[in-house]
Amino acid sequence: MGSVKCQISISLDGFVAGPNQSIENPIGEGGIRLHEWAFQTEAWRRQHGLTGGERTADSDVIDEVVQGVGAYIMGRNMFGGGGGPWDEKWTGWWGEEPPYHAPVFVLSSHPREPLLMKGGTTFTFVSDGIESALQQALAAAGGSDVAIAGGASVVQQYLKAGLLDELYLHIVPIILGTGERLLADIGDPVFEPVQVIASPAATHIKYRVANPV
Amino acid sequence: MGSVKCQISISLDGFVAGPNQSIENPIGEGGIRLHEWAFQTEAWRRQHGLTGGERTADSDVIDEVVQGVGAYIMGRNMFGGGGGPWDEKWTGWWGEEPPYHAPVFVLSSHPREPLLMKGGTTFTFVSDGIESALQQALAAAGGSDVAIAGGASVVQQYLKAGLLDELYLHIVPIILGTGERLLADIGDPVFEPVQVIASPAATHIKYRVANPV
Repeated sequence: MGSVKCQISISLDGFVAGPNQSIENPIGEGGIRLHEWAFQTEAWRRQHGLTGGERTADSDVIDEVVQGVGAYIMGRNMFGGGGGPWDEKWTGWWGEEPPYHAPVFVLSSHPREPLLMKGGTTFTFVSDGIESALQQALAAAGGSDVAIAGGASVVQQYLKAGLLDELYLHIVPIILGTGERLLADIGDPVFEPVQVIASPAATHIKYRVANPV
Repeated sequence: MGSVKCQISISLDGFVAGPNQSIENPIGEGGIRLHEWAFQTEAWRRQHGLTGGERTADSDVIDEVVQGVGAYIMGRNMFGGGGGPWDEKWTGWWGEEPPYHAPVFVLSSHPREPLLMKGGTTFTFVSDGIESALQQALAAAGGSDVAIAGGASVVQQYLKAGLLDELYLHIVPIILGTGERLLADIGDPVFEPVQVIASPAATHIKYRVANPV
């Protein structure tokens, strides 16, 4: 069976989104600064149908994090925006061809028919909890890994439930000062650093999470 | 002139001391877990007059952080304990021969005569602010570096004032959940990672702090 993992950009002071998230600014004020290390890479641009970009250690990380992922899980806000347009016309932030190219399970309290997007992405809405979503995602992944795509509260729920096997933090050397924290209300899991990749733009630390049996 | 630097152990969730700091437990509940990576090294044991310990990357870091330091600055709580025995008999937590072997400037609102300890450590009490302490420490260091020893609030004050040149974080893979945060109320300094050393016990990231001129 595949493992359950999460990779996420985090500020030096622990935030994964800025304050005042809204439909206009789903990652919050200043939150875009968390992702600039990725935008400038060749791998991110290629994955999003663009040319150019830099071939750096950061670029290799971008390629690494999609390898072996067979399905994704995301929260309702990540799919639909903070308090956003959750209706039958909304198909996510990513246009006709989202960058997932795999089954995506969206946690939601509202049942909805699955969405089939271009390029192999499907959005399946799961209203009966995180364990059900994980079972469905693992089945859909067919032995490959399941990635928890975010946001923070979904990652926290999987961490707290002891269901996450790997947390890969991209520590970005910025201070947001306020916003959405990742590592709050998660209990006391045991983290073991298993890989560190350093660049001027971010320090990428991969932790194995040891969950009590 | 020497540079002004700080090296400090920090939990993955951003705390440099546990909750409920007291005279019995100056680093707070669970705070000792932040320092276990150091205790097991050969360098830490040697610096504290002990034998044994492991020669690891962590041990090299312990040796590295004392190199080139000509003077220290610490806060009143770090010298005297949280709400602790601030009287003329109290000479710090470290016994007759503190591990600093250099001039130490203690920020305090209470004037007091300097203390001369064994092994070259002197404690000089500074009651007219952080800039005065820094001037005195730089003069005492005679061209070597000045290390801000802690605690968190003192580091924050120097960061916020734009007076810190280097922050060396030992990121320990533990979750404290609560306690004393380091990177709060520090403004928005520009951090640049310049060195990363990884071990199973901690990830050591050295940041150059770019302060606006």
